[in-house]
Amino acid sequence: MRADIANLKYVFEPKSIAIVGASDNPEKLGNVILKNLVDGGYEGGIYPVNPKYPELLGKKCYADLKSISGKVDLAIFAIPAPLVPDVAEECGKKGVKAIVVLSAGFGESGNVELEEKLKSVVLKYGIALIGPNCLGVMNPESRVDSIFFPFYKFGRPGVGDISIITQSGAVGSCIADLAAYYKVGFAKFVSYGNGATINEVDLLEYLGADAKTKQIMLYLEGTKDGKGLLSALKKVNPKKPIIVLKAGKGIVAGAAAMSHTGNLAGNYTAYQAAFRQSKAIEVDSVVELFYVANMFSQVRPTGNRVGIITDGGGLGVLTADAVEKEGLDVAKMSDIGRQRLREMLPARIPIANPLDVIADSGVDIYEKAINAMIEDENVDSIVVIILFQAPAVDSRIVDVLVRASDKKKKPILVVGVGGEYTRQNRKTLDSYGIPTYGSPETAIRALKKFTEYSLFLKDKK
Amino acid sequence: MRADIANLKYVFEPKSIAIVGASDNPEKLGNVILKNLVDGGYEGGIYPVNPKYPELLGKKCYADLKSISGKVDLAIFAIPAPLVPDVAEECGKKGVKAIVVLSAGFGESGNVELEEKLKSVVLKYGIALIGPNCLGVMNPESRVDSIFFPFYKFGRPGVGDISIITQSGAVGSCIADLAAYYKVGFAKFVSYGNGATINEVDLLEYLGADAKTKQIMLYLEGTKDGKGLLSALKKVNPKKPIIVLKAGKGIVAGAAAMSHTGNLAGNYTAYQAAFRQSKAIEVDSVVELFYVANMFSQVRPTGNRVGIITDGGGLGVLTADAVEKEGLDVAKMSDIGRQRLREMLPARIPIANPLDVIADSGVDIYEKAINAMIEDENVDSIVVIILFQAPAVDSRIVDVLVRASDKKKKPILVVGVGGEYTRQNRKTLDSYGIPTYGSPETAIRALKKFTEYSLFLKDKK
Repeated sequence: MRADIANLKYVFEPKSIAIVGASDNPEKLGNVILKNLVDGGYEGGIYPVNPKYPELLGKKCYADLKSISGKVDLAIFAIPAPLVPDVAEECGKKGVKAIVVLSAGFGESGNVELEEKLKSVVLKYGIALIGPNCLGVMNPESRVDSIFFPFYKFGRPGVGDISIITQSGAVGSCIADLAAYYKVGFAKFVSYGNGATINEVDLLEYLGADAKTKQIMLYLEGTKDGKGLLSALKKVNPKKPIIVLKAGKGIVAGAAAMSHTGNLAGNYTAYQAAFRQSKAIEVDSVVELFYVANMFSQVRPTGNRVGIITDGGGLGVLTADAVEKEGLDVAKMSDIGRQRLREMLPARIPIANPLDVIADSGVDIYEKAINAMIEDENVDSIVVIILFQAPAVDSRIVDVLVRASDKKKKPILVVGVGGEYTRQNRKTLDSYGIPTYGSPETAIRALKKFTEYSLFLKDKK
Repeated sequence: MRADIANLKYVFEPKSIAIVGASDNPEKLGNVILKNLVDGGYEGGIYPVNPKYPELLGKKCYADLKSISGKVDLAIFAIPAPLVPDVAEECGKKGVKAIVVLSAGFGESGNVELEEKLKSVVLKYGIALIGPNCLGVMNPESRVDSIFFPFYKFGRPGVGDISIITQSGAVGSCIADLAAYYKVGFAKFVSYGNGATINEVDLLEYLGADAKTKQIMLYLEGTKDGKGLLSALKKVNPKKPIIVLKAGKGIVAGAAAMSHTGNLAGNYTAYQAAFRQSKAIEVDSVVELFYVANMFSQVRPTGNRVGIITDGGGLGVLTADAVEKEGLDVAKMSDIGRQRLREMLPARIPIANPLDVIADSGVDIYEKAINAMIEDENVDSIVVIILFQAPAVDSRIVDVLVRASDKKKKPILVVGVGGEYTRQNRKTLDSYGIPTYGSPETAIRALKKFTEYSLFLKDKK
């Protein structure tokens, strides 16, 4: 293994961090990062570096790297691009294992030579380099955090098992901020920008082997190593589902991507083929990353036949439309299953799929219907639509769904369309690991992706 | 005009309302509706009808309709289906102008004869009938409200200029609840269920002529009068944009729709053709109704060339992708426009579209960029992407956007992807009439629909 790649662990779990270009001006990156490390509770050594200050935020400030007496595992660079290679050289001499270069102004804006210079320095010393032109890293467990956005504007996700690899810092910050909002925990987050040495392929391999990572979200504009990417996707995806968002699909968008991180977005069909071949889970938007990831709390379906239960007829129709549009099947319930339901449910409820249990039905009718679908051999996954607005639905619906989901027989997802009260109820369900969705269409798209991935793993066996 | 249709005004603006089947049991519709009318501040006469009670919620309760001494404009029925025709007959004798029949158990569940009986009664007396099998009506201005969902579970929208016509009560309640959540005001809301006599065509015509209605949202499963529907769409849509969500597109979904409101969902291509011919704005989900409606606060674009401004490169790429996918054009800025920008913006910002003003640019750079796009003759609409998480963006961005939008030269929409802080900022902008979106994809889909409609009107001139 390349020495710099072996040092990636110091990016995520350093025992000490130097902030090169630390500042007392709250509008400067070097101030925000230092503050975030201190406020965020990072417990290792924190070394601000800037000849201008004797002290910053209560920490001793150093004139340069060599003045630091202790060991430095990771250095975060918040200095102008032209200064970066020389300071990287200093890092090498000091024995720094990893650097995160936030600064822009390298290959992406035509300064290819400067980027080459930086590359040769880090490769010479075996330094793991994240960047340049990036947001860097975040590890909620070790509390490493190089993101130069203040906490109040950008919520930090808690500890979890999803890792993020993103070429774009902006998109990465949106992903992390949404994760904090949705209460989705992260294992590792890395925004690698230009990926001068360590790129998406190395990061996929690294996180593929990371014990804390169970799922990976990948935002990609373009790769310089198509073959490596395909091979990494093929290797990692069967173990850890990779949900990928490819940007720069169109002609203009592709050109914009080029000027953004200096990577050729290339022919989208080639990427699409790689995703299909590796069965990586491709999504169409940042929010869809979460819709799909949300499904992975559920047991995997063994087929694509969907049972639909609703207390609002129209929502059942919209859901059936979505199922058909996405190429899943609206399940034909078995004769036994239909009979079971007929015996259990009041005569006013027609037995069909979608099963419309009618708005004035209470929670126990939901429970019977869900259990019948769980038992039915012709049903592979169950979509429960709840009109939380209806008077007959009360908070016991949460117990019903948790009990059903705990059986771990079939994936169960919930659709609740509405305002404040509905959202509160969805949050409660989400917190118990039951995926909920604000519209039938997003729910079924997520189920489709989850089903495809599940069937791919099933076929592989 | 048919006498019953002429009486539709008593559905929305009655001077007095009888609640047939009023109850003191909070789990019964007849209780919820009575309570909602009282709590909602309806100022006309309220007459609970039920022989069981002398009084309900402080109101005198009547044994039957004829015992009411005053005039009754509207009667809301919350009684079992088999009793409905006889009570409708009583209404006719009493001179009631309109009835809303919430009860299910008519044509949709095979009781065609019962529905025919009801029809003949209301047509005999010229009573405007909404339903049966519906949620009925809501008029935030007159405070008529027959929705049997309690206020705390289902927010009521305020007064506004959008009217809703929905075949499904459940979908209707989701639409209204979302409207309350998004703070979108309503003119009139009508859930007409089976539409035994008054149907979507009559309601489109009625609201097309309603002075308070400026936009119409239509949820449709199927119609019994395809020709009438097309003609109403063609007549109303050029005056008041009609945003339509058609359900029951697929085979299974179509059958489900049939059992739901007894209407044939029919061949979707026929509906699609009608929407295309009339240029009604078809959307794919309940939430998209709002995304599109949101755009109509803006001046209409005169072409499909989109200018994109962003402080996060990756978000610009995703937006350009969406523009290309939806068949809009990423604008090629004019030479003058490019030059104007070059002179105004710092050298580190490359002049292009998407225009990446870079995360550390402040609010004044946004203002310059937006103004340059407003002046550029090659740009028809402007998408402003704001990474609210970035340190350099502060609350003055609201002033900048309000000033730009107030020029009313080109439509301006905002994309902000993120958590709590971003959502607060979006709410502020929305409240000033600037449409905001939580993802580039939803924004561009809405812009596409708005542009199509705008160009249709332009061509018509």
